[in-house]
Amino acid sequence: MFWSRYYIPTLKEDPTDAEVISHKLLIRAGMIRKLTSGIYTYLPLALRSLQKISNIIREEMERFGAVEILMPGVQPAELWQESGRWNAYGKELLRFKDRHQRNYCLGPTHEEVVTDLIRGEVKSYRQLPLNLFQIQTKFRDEIRPRFGLMRGREFIMKDGYSFDKDDQGAIQSYEKMYAAYQSIFSRLGLEFRAVEADTGQIGGSYSHEFMVLAETGEDTIVVCSQCEYAANIEKVEVKLSNPEESGSCPPLEEVKTPGKHSVEEVASFLGCAPQKIIKTLIYKVDDRLVAVLIRGDRELNEIKLKNKFDVQEVSLASAQEVEQVTGAPLGFAGPVGLGIEIYADQELQNGTDYVVGANKLDAHFLHCDLKRDVQVKDFLDLRNITAEDPCPKCGSRLSLTKGIEVGHIFKLGTKYSLALKATFLDEQGQEKPMVMGCYGIGVSRVLAASIEQNHDLNGIIFPVPIAPFQCLLIALNVKDQQVMAKAKELYAQLTAEGVECLLDDRDERPGFKFKDADLIGIPVQVILGAKSLKENKLELKIRKTGEKIIVDWNEGVEKIKQLLKEEE
Amino acid sequence: MFWSRYYIPTLKEDPTDAEVISHKLLIRAGMIRKLTSGIYTYLPLALRSLQKISNIIREEMERFGAVEILMPGVQPAELWQESGRWNAYGKELLRFKDRHQRNYCLGPTHEEVVTDLIRGEVKSYRQLPLNLFQIQTKFRDEIRPRFGLMRGREFIMKDGYSFDKDDQGAIQSYEKMYAAYQSIFSRLGLEFRAVEADTGQIGGSYSHEFMVLAETGEDTIVVCSQCEYAANIEKVEVKLSNPEESGSCPPLEEVKTPGKHSVEEVASFLGCAPQKIIKTLIYKVDDRLVAVLIRGDRELNEIKLKNKFDVQEVSLASAQEVEQVTGAPLGFAGPVGLGIEIYADQELQNGTDYVVGANKLDAHFLHCDLKRDVQVKDFLDLRNITAEDPCPKCGSRLSLTKGIEVGHIFKLGTKYSLALKATFLDEQGQEKPMVMGCYGIGVSRVLAASIEQNHDLNGIIFPVPIAPFQCLLIALNVKDQQVMAKAKELYAQLTAEGVECLLDDRDERPGFKFKDADLIGIPVQVILGAKSLKENKLELKIRKTGEKIIVDWNEGVEKIKQLLKEEE
Repeated sequence: MFWSRYYIPTLKEDPTDAEVISHKLLIRAGMIRKLTSGIYTYLPLALRSLQKISNIIREEMERFGAVEILMPGVQPAELWQESGRWNAYGKELLRFKDRHQRNYCLGPTHEEVVTDLIRGEVKSYRQLPLNLFQIQTKFRDEIRPRFGLMRGREFIMKDGYSFDKDDQGAIQSYEKMYAAYQSIFSRLGLEFRAVEADTGQIGGSYSHEFMVLAETGEDTIVVCSQCEYAANIEKVEVKLSNPEESGSCPPLEEVKTPGKHSVEEVASFLGCAPQKIIKTLIYKVDDRLVAVLIRGDRELNEIKLKNKFDVQEVSLASAQEVEQVTGAPLGFAGPVGLGIEIYADQELQNGTDYVVGANKLDAHFLHCDLKRDVQVKDFLDLRNITAEDPCPKCGSRLSLTKGIEVGHIFKLGTKYSLALKATFLDEQGQEKPMVMGCYGIGVSRVLAASIEQNHDLNGIIFPVPIAPFQCLLIALNVKDQQVMAKAKELYAQLTAEGVECLLDDRDERPGFKFKDADLIGIPVQVILGAKSLKENKLELKIRKTGEKIIVDWNEGVEKIKQLLKEEE
Repeated sequence: MFWSRYYIPTLKEDPTDAEVISHKLLIRAGMIRKLTSGIYTYLPLALRSLQKISNIIREEMERFGAVEILMPGVQPAELWQESGRWNAYGKELLRFKDRHQRNYCLGPTHEEVVTDLIRGEVKSYRQLPLNLFQIQTKFRDEIRPRFGLMRGREFIMKDGYSFDKDDQGAIQSYEKMYAAYQSIFSRLGLEFRAVEADTGQIGGSYSHEFMVLAETGEDTIVVCSQCEYAANIEKVEVKLSNPEESGSCPPLEEVKTPGKHSVEEVASFLGCAPQKIIKTLIYKVDDRLVAVLIRGDRELNEIKLKNKFDVQEVSLASAQEVEQVTGAPLGFAGPVGLGIEIYADQELQNGTDYVVGANKLDAHFLHCDLKRDVQVKDFLDLRNITAEDPCPKCGSRLSLTKGIEVGHIFKLGTKYSLALKATFLDEQGQEKPMVMGCYGIGVSRVLAASIEQNHDLNGIIFPVPIAPFQCLLIALNVKDQQVMAKAKELYAQLTAEGVECLLDDRDERPGFKFKDADLIGIPVQVILGAKSLKENKLELKIRKTGEKIIVDWNEGVEKIKQLLKEEE
């Protein structure tokens, strides 16, 4: 492809609304443009990457026995009513009416549609197992779309669904997909890790997430240094290894803490350790408010909270709501005398002598003993694990790293097959529900995650397997006919050898073109200048390392192919 | 691919709701399944065909200089308000609100989005021409979706948009796309014809449709026997070659025509020729009612009517409305004394002595002279041309054939660039609107149209370039290990030679498998039975002709490759 006839509108400046590096670079490299909140157009470079990602996924899914279909984006309400999700699914499910006032939604996932597709047609155990997948555009009406392709509303997803005659078969299907995912992410050229995960809104009995490792990841991964344990922090149980012991506690004492809201401020003002302070968080659990107590130095894990209450959504109460239930402004909530249900993290169970908010402006209590002064409804595992906690499996040291979820596999069980009556006759002629699994990969998110993982100050550094082009030829002076002739000759040779080339034939200054070259991140650059061409030399640059290599013209094609192979 | 591990749910019976052959065969061949009205899932065989169609389109579009992107399906109302189509576009535009109550639509076409994409970024004549295309899922909320993939609500389309600095450039872009379309439909293996067409809701100055020729086509194509003229009947102007002459006319005379509603009934009852009867049609033009007069033996062309009135929609008035304006039940409407605007086809201009409805139950008038008895507001070209009319270009004989519209190219001009302010600076530094063209292909419709054109009583006959597989190996007795071993050997050999094979390894009777083979329409069948294999022979069958060929085992692969080449 010749750049001048292509469409790569690169930008010098970071877009103002982009918070994360992949979003910035995708915009600046002329790969995506925002149409409206959380909805993007893929420009040619991004589309080529997405097509490569899709093809790798397709090949591996098929190699592991899955069959590709394509289901619609618009789905009728009836199916979601049958599964019970029409009401249960939150506002991310975009619902609308057609011209005949019938209810539909834009599919955020396809469990209902795929189950409806095969029920009635797959009737015998002899037709099982069956594993169907698609690469398709999904829509989730995120309340706060952000981070470009990382959390958009319209996005491209590979979703697959397996149907088995029994649990054993379902586990085999799950394991096949686990293996397929390992192959896929390896072939995509990404550093990744599979971790145990929460099952969330999809439901089901267990699941793994595939995480691209990147400092900028939203997810925290917990990895054991000894055993094989690795899990999303959302999912990691905290073992109460060293319960603190109760001691005697002086009576409650109110102290003034003027303008001290945060744990840090109060600890420093009172001269106590943050772990001797209890944070009182007012949460909205579906429609009611509850208080959640947690040690000052800990993070609450909202997923655990959601799972304990078995609800769709939990969220921090608004300032107004906090004021209503505590009688004090934000920052001074405390459990003493609070008129709502109170839950506390388990590690507070045996501790005593804490600092807590006094439900009064600019005031805290010293010497709070939860058992003596507070009616705690239940002590639960509610906090995030830390690197200081022992591995919940083997007790060894843990480490925490950041990751971006790009794949998620679930063993669903019979949740959807029971609801939608997807049954079959087994060997004994007995009618049974199929046992299902479902398997997702965020195709457009993979593109963003690969950039979060692979970039430097100058731009994107694409792994070879998903680079839009493998080789970028930079013709330095396009008005020099000899340079252009040589550039086109090399372009033709490389193309004939199956190397995908982009030729920068724009009439621009070299510095401008070098900057763009680094920005768009093609793995190998070839700089074609009059001087080196006269000497029958080629200048190559490896984007990842910045290393420059001078080779004889005649050896150029071979060297480029070799570099691409090494980079893969 | 082995059939037993694939998903091809063939059916013996025609589906009850399918009216056209492509719909019936796509369902029966296990290629599509209906999710809801006008919305289908593509099963593996259909998806493979669609991918082949898409790839041919992609290659040719790129060869003719177009660049692939991918735009969103969900579009914000603001852009459609800017172009004026938010209100102008009918109910086919599915509008909805997101969780924040902002207005969106599901994209039925992408003129607004693509124009928004490049405005502000393409600023100079040096960046033009630019031609962007995508292959994407569209949604049109058809009032009456039918005919399976022929007129669905959710469908796959290739849409492309060109931007030029002037009209001359736009014509060149248009001509390039005309050539690209000729290549595309040739490569797809379809019999087709490009015809002049109406521009419809997209607007613009002129356009061509690409029609797949098929008896079952909804469109009528008018082709001249002498000159190059070919056009959609919607668009063909009728030249008034032999105006009828006025003569003297007896006075109006009311006659009883009890229970005679249709032209045929009245003509036969009164013993006159249908061309001496005038049909009076009451039409709804936006919100008002008008009467349209046309000779009894002619067909009204609604597109012409719509274009004359320059409105979005015209439709026949309801029985109730007809009764209101004529005072008589349906079938007796006439122009004499009618209190609404009356328009007449031009060929009625000089005629006289017609039979017309009397606006009274069971009554007609004889001897109606339009000039004497009726106030005709205008005489217009309103009817469909017939094979008896002369070519509007050269006057020679015409022929009429049926076709299915699969592609449509438009020269848009500056309609959208003016509305959305997509301007550039020309060589003289003057700001000018870009001149646009747009170019569509119904990808999923191509699949249906190819079946309408290529089928027989037994099923589909796929052209080689878009067949899901090229070769179907039918193992007759899968329990015979030698047969299966030979089948797998041939499968491996053919696959290695790049022939795409489906191996029917199902444990079913031969007759059942032969029926399915003909139904799904793979171009070459290979029948692998114990007897012929023992004789070292292979039995081949060409789906299109039914011809059977026996070849030596060793010559099988070469012969199959040769047959595929011949069929292409």
